[in-house]
Amino acid sequence: MIKILVDCFGGDHSPQAQVAGSLAALAKNPNLHLLLTGDQALLEAELKGKTYDATRLDIIHAPEVIGCDEKPTDVIRLKRNSSMMKAIILLRDEDDIAAMVSCGSTGALVTGALVRLGRIPGVIRPAFCPLLPTMEGGIVGICDSGANPEVTPAHLRQFAIMASLYLENVYGVDKPRTALLNVGKEAEKGDDIRREAYQLLQQTPSVNFVGNMESRDLLSGAYDLVVADGFSGNVLVKTTEGTAIELLKKLKKDIYSRTLYKVGALLMKRMFQEEKEFMNYQNYGGSVLLGTAKVVVKGHGSSKAVAVEKCIEQAYRMEISKLSSKIETEIARYEHYEE
Amino acid sequence: MIKILVDCFGGDHSPQAQVAGSLAALAKNPNLHLLLTGDQALLEAELKGKTYDATRLDIIHAPEVIGCDEKPTDVIRLKRNSSMMKAIILLRDEDDIAAMVSCGSTGALVTGALVRLGRIPGVIRPAFCPLLPTMEGGIVGICDSGANPEVTPAHLRQFAIMASLYLENVYGVDKPRTALLNVGKEAEKGDDIRREAYQLLQQTPSVNFVGNMESRDLLSGAYDLVVADGFSGNVLVKTTEGTAIELLKKLKKDIYSRTLYKVGALLMKRMFQEEKEFMNYQNYGGSVLLGTAKVVVKGHGSSKAVAVEKCIEQAYRMEISKLSSKIETEIARYEHYEE
Repeated sequence: MIKILVDCFGGDHSPQAQVAGSLAALAKNPNLHLLLTGDQALLEAELKGKTYDATRLDIIHAPEVIGCDEKPTDVIRLKRNSSMMKAIILLRDEDDIAAMVSCGSTGALVTGALVRLGRIPGVIRPAFCPLLPTMEGGIVGICDSGANPEVTPAHLRQFAIMASLYLENVYGVDKPRTALLNVGKEAEKGDDIRREAYQLLQQTPSVNFVGNMESRDLLSGAYDLVVADGFSGNVLVKTTEGTAIELLKKLKKDIYSRTLYKVGALLMKRMFQEEKEFMNYQNYGGSVLLGTAKVVVKGHGSSKAVAVEKCIEQAYRMEISKLSSKIETEIARYEHYEE
Repeated sequence: MIKILVDCFGGDHSPQAQVAGSLAALAKNPNLHLLLTGDQALLEAELKGKTYDATRLDIIHAPEVIGCDEKPTDVIRLKRNSSMMKAIILLRDEDDIAAMVSCGSTGALVTGALVRLGRIPGVIRPAFCPLLPTMEGGIVGICDSGANPEVTPAHLRQFAIMASLYLENVYGVDKPRTALLNVGKEAEKGDDIRREAYQLLQQTPSVNFVGNMESRDLLSGAYDLVVADGFSGNVLVKTTEGTAIELLKKLKKDIYSRTLYKVGALLMKRMFQEEKEFMNYQNYGGSVLLGTAKVVVKGHGSSKAVAVEKCIEQAYRMEISKLSSKIETEIARYEHYEE
């Protein structure tokens, strides 16, 4: 039995999406046991009348709520009874709990995981690795995408090692083609950090490094993994999502501007629905936090039930693939630059 | 008469696109005089048989070619007879020449402009400011987008001042709504540079600062100008272009997968053509380099004639709007942090 915590508050559709996603995951996977954190009365009300295997679902009462504007450092100190902090502390303290899923504040989750949960031995900085669909029908991972606005070349190398193992072991990508996000393809492009990281990645046999990538080529299918500092990685992921969303909105608006277009679009209805599903990031699960002592998956704040279910599935697959111990082994092959 | 240099080599479609774009601009604007730099024989061959006012077009012979892999510092030292370096030096030395347009190597252009041409007094670092179309039918500028991978808060403030003046004076945008690119909207998001820049921008009356922007919202129409370091600004612009291109490619491929879709698309042909034009960055001109002693406009390497023509028009409008002296006056209102 794999035990996973689900933080049921802090998302835009909490706790409905978290509860519905949890029940869907439980129904599909007989080897899964879920622990839902949050206000007990609210969670019980949400579960009422629903069918599920109650022996594999527990509620952990955590009544405090984290506000939007609260500083992460205040949250971890003052909000120990919030659904997120309670999950982090339980994850740390209970050996039989494998992972947690949260759609709450990114800053609080990163700080909480760093300070309360800790890292895999040897890992300097945990990093996010969300996935996007490529135009060739595959996926591409981006690591880091927000946990570390500032990085060193040694951090970037570790991101590449951890995320390569993630893609190999959880998604079956063979020797992920790994690129460094940069402003041009040539080795000398970018700042000193990028130039040094380029050299370091070339000397890292654990990584199938294929050179620099310009952001224009993210979705081309030529790369399986892109390594970046958390600031520009965040820009890369959010710009891609934002552009896709805005373009679909524009298409829709333009279609409604003329009857002829409406007729044409009717014939293409199924195609447009498929495009919409293709670009719907809810279908690609959450952004896993690689390098923490135990598995942490961060869902979008806007996650609906299907996205929460995907996040739970990701956490499950990370646990059964023994990703953490593989990361520890591989990281140990290289010198650490900080502790 | 406004005299503008056009570097006719170094682009993907050189010199055909540069010559055709130049002739189109000349035909439209009787007050324009163009100086084409490049191999004289090749340029003469390209001009042969074409109709144009020869009294307003000169060829400046510059036979050397800049290779793709050449270091910018080598180019400015060793390639003085290249079409780009010749243009930069002429622009510096000839009082009656107002501006230059180039689609050649970005690195060489930035280094050449900095070292040979110099800056507007008070400007710490020149910065690129390309434009993208918003979904509301307007434009949004991004400054910097590649000239300065590393910046300080003082640089970011100057980018905001220069680009606000550019949008106001060249595009008639009233009090451009200016945002700082960041990983979240709250004032304390991002790294120290972002947090300090946020404070500094709030204390800058020359800038209509509206707070942080997440990259997801770039095309929403809520912003006229986004200020960024050259690294993440570059990621922002290229990811937007890349996502739009890849999505259109996917739509096209999917349309061809079924006869029904092909019929539907036929009814929507004009709409799809308009979408394609809307997303075609060739229609939005080049990326102006703000802060250089004289006007420099950088076109995409892939520029075709229409894009070159737009770049020339941009340079012309920057010159007649007296943008440089306005930048000098406004920058002088604030303390300089470096020289």
